[in-house]
Amino acid sequence: MAAFEPKNPGYRAAAIAMFDRQPAMHTLGIVIVRLAPGEVELAMLHSAAFTQQNGFVHAGIITAGLDNACGVAAFSLMPREADILTVEFKTTLLAPARGERFVFKAEVVKSGRTLTFCEAKAFAEHEGTTTLIATMTGTLMAMLPRIHAAGAMTSPPRRSI
Amino acid sequence: MAAFEPKNPGYRAAAIAMFDRQPAMHTLGIVIVRLAPGEVELAMLHSAAFTQQNGFVHAGIITAGLDNACGVAAFSLMPREADILTVEFKTTLLAPARGERFVFKAEVVKSGRTLTFCEAKAFAEHEGTTTLIATMTGTLMAMLPRIHAAGAMTSPPRRSI
Amino acid sequence: MAAFEPKNPGYRAAAIAMFDRQPAMHTLGIVIVRLAPGEVELAMLHSAAFTQQNGFVHAGIITAGLDNACGVAAFSLMPREADILTVEFKTTLLAPARGERFVFKAEVVKSGRTLTFCEAKAFAEHEGTTTLIATMTGTLMAMLPRIHAAGAMTSPPRRSI
Amino acid sequence: MAAFEPKNPGYRAAAIAMFDRQPAMHTLGIVIVRLAPGEVELAMLHSAAFTQQNGFVHAGIITAGLDNACGVAAFSLMPREADILTVEFKTTLLAPARGERFVFKAEVVKSGRTLTFCEAKAFAEHEGTTTLIATMTGTLMAMLPRIHAAGAMTSPPRRSI
Repeated sequence: MAAFEPKNPGYRAAAIAMFDRQPAMHTLGIVIVRLAPGEVELAMLHSAAFTQQNGFVHAGIITAGLDNACGVAAFSLMPREADILTVEFKTTLLAPARGERFVFKAEVVKSGRTLTFCEAKAFAEHEGTTTLIATMTGTLMAMLPRIHAAGAMTSPPRRSI
Repeated sequence: MAAFEPKNPGYRAAAIAMFDRQPAMHTLGIVIVRLAPGEVELAMLHSAAFTQQNGFVHAGIITAGLDNACGVAAFSLMPREADILTVEFKTTLLAPARGERFVFKAEVVKSGRTLTFCEAKAFAEHEGTTTLIATMTGTLMAMLPRIHAAGAMTSPPRRSI
Repeated sequence: MAAFEPKNPGYRAAAIAMFDRQPAMHTLGIVIVRLAPGEVELAMLHSAAFTQQNGFVHAGIITAGLDNACGVAAFSLMPREADILTVEFKTTLLAPARGERFVFKAEVVKSGRTLTFCEAKAFAEHEGTTTLIATMTGTLMAMLPRIHAAGAMTSPPRRSI
Repeated sequence: MAAFEPKNPGYRAAAIAMFDRQPAMHTLGIVIVRLAPGEVELAMLHSAAFTQQNGFVHAGIITAGLDNACGVAAFSLMPREADILTVEFKTTLLAPARGERFVFKAEVVKSGRTLTFCEAKAFAEHEGTTTLIATMTGTLMAMLPRIHAAGAMTSPPRRSI
């Protein structure tokens, strides 16, 4: 992918702060491993509490990691005043989520004014081998303060898609 | 949708047992509310531990509920010897997951020998109103014991898609 | 789905005009059969020119019908000055597209200021029976004239997502 | 992606023959440009007959090219006796399909016994520049002759997913 130019010079601190404000990430033990404009890598250790009937990590939890990777990657390219919202994603499950550690890598495919398109991959590290276990394509939306005809800026309409 | 005829007369006990063997469902506090052949309803109380930066439940957790609803609905129509595997799903996020309780309803759209197609909806119950917050369409796969030319049956090839 | 209130009183003529300006619809022989606010039904006769190797209509052609049904349904709820753009869709192919006539029914699931979410179904009519052959979930976007701080309205930014 | 080993030594002729048996490809003017095990590139010249209301190629036609690229890529890795079927795909539309020529590149992400997962990209060539206009992720299925317990092989169950 082409290198992206962040609109927010403080994108790094902003993205980390947004990530850290998510209790779900703390509960799942997901952390940021690498962060660049439009690219991010997250990691999560295996936890038996989030497995399904065969002992693999639940697809919803893998999706939470993939979606958050997309979110941070997209957010890193948004202007300072934007909030972010996931519109939709598709997860394809290629192999069981068996491993001691999981890595979620996302990158922005296209960054528009309103919509950002991302792709992400989940990898399982198991006994020294790394396996691609899932992919995601997702659409994310920047929630920007509206500018009215009169020129007054309002606060972001948080969730009115 | 048309009424479905379960292949496994003990589908109910089998589906409940499969659900109960998933530690992730216990951790997330998701329970089965209703179960019929090819149809299921799950419910989850709000937990601050699984929220994102705006206090709404994380999209990955909502996806875990939707995916599991699809899984139980699909599994209820599979033969007794089948194991189940999610192939892929798409989640569309229509509104923020704000509420005290969340409901996940899934139904089978088509049940084939190998693949089952499901649709699911997530609802948030908030201060007396119920809102559709997300939809899923997903593909699930029955993992059946292979029958070799010699006629010997082998155990299910758990994850070789 | 709930009944929708069109923002454009002339939605019907506007949607038909938009449909008629699409050469692809004429080439494929797709016509509007029914149109209500947020709901549409299209139909297409079988054409051997658009089949695949087994004599069934090609999945891309079925997708063209489904996507256009979503587009007209979404457009019927948009304000008069909006142009429309498909963001993404997922097509699930449930059964072969075998038949003399095909019907594409779409309805709006949620109509937001910027994004509209639709669901559509494709049916094949074959020797007197009607079969659900495919489903679509899609996201569409209203391209609205931007209002600048100074209050001047510009023409719609046709394709800058 | 890793290099793939075709199961069918005659994969090249088989894939070309399958492609050529599709009237839709002839009608749309789509041709194979490059073919390797698990990878394919198709091309299509612009045709006004397949455009939408803004003069861009219709999303359904772009999807037909992407889906067929996935189909040929997946088919190239299947055993000689297999027929192929698309299960589902998601198309993301990144930019308008404006150009004189369009290229569809697909590659297999995972090739399983029953299911194959592909990714594809569509590019528009317009006045000397090439633009990524759409992406697809799709699931395809090999339809294999069933082997019964008695050991007798039956013809492929063409469309019973």
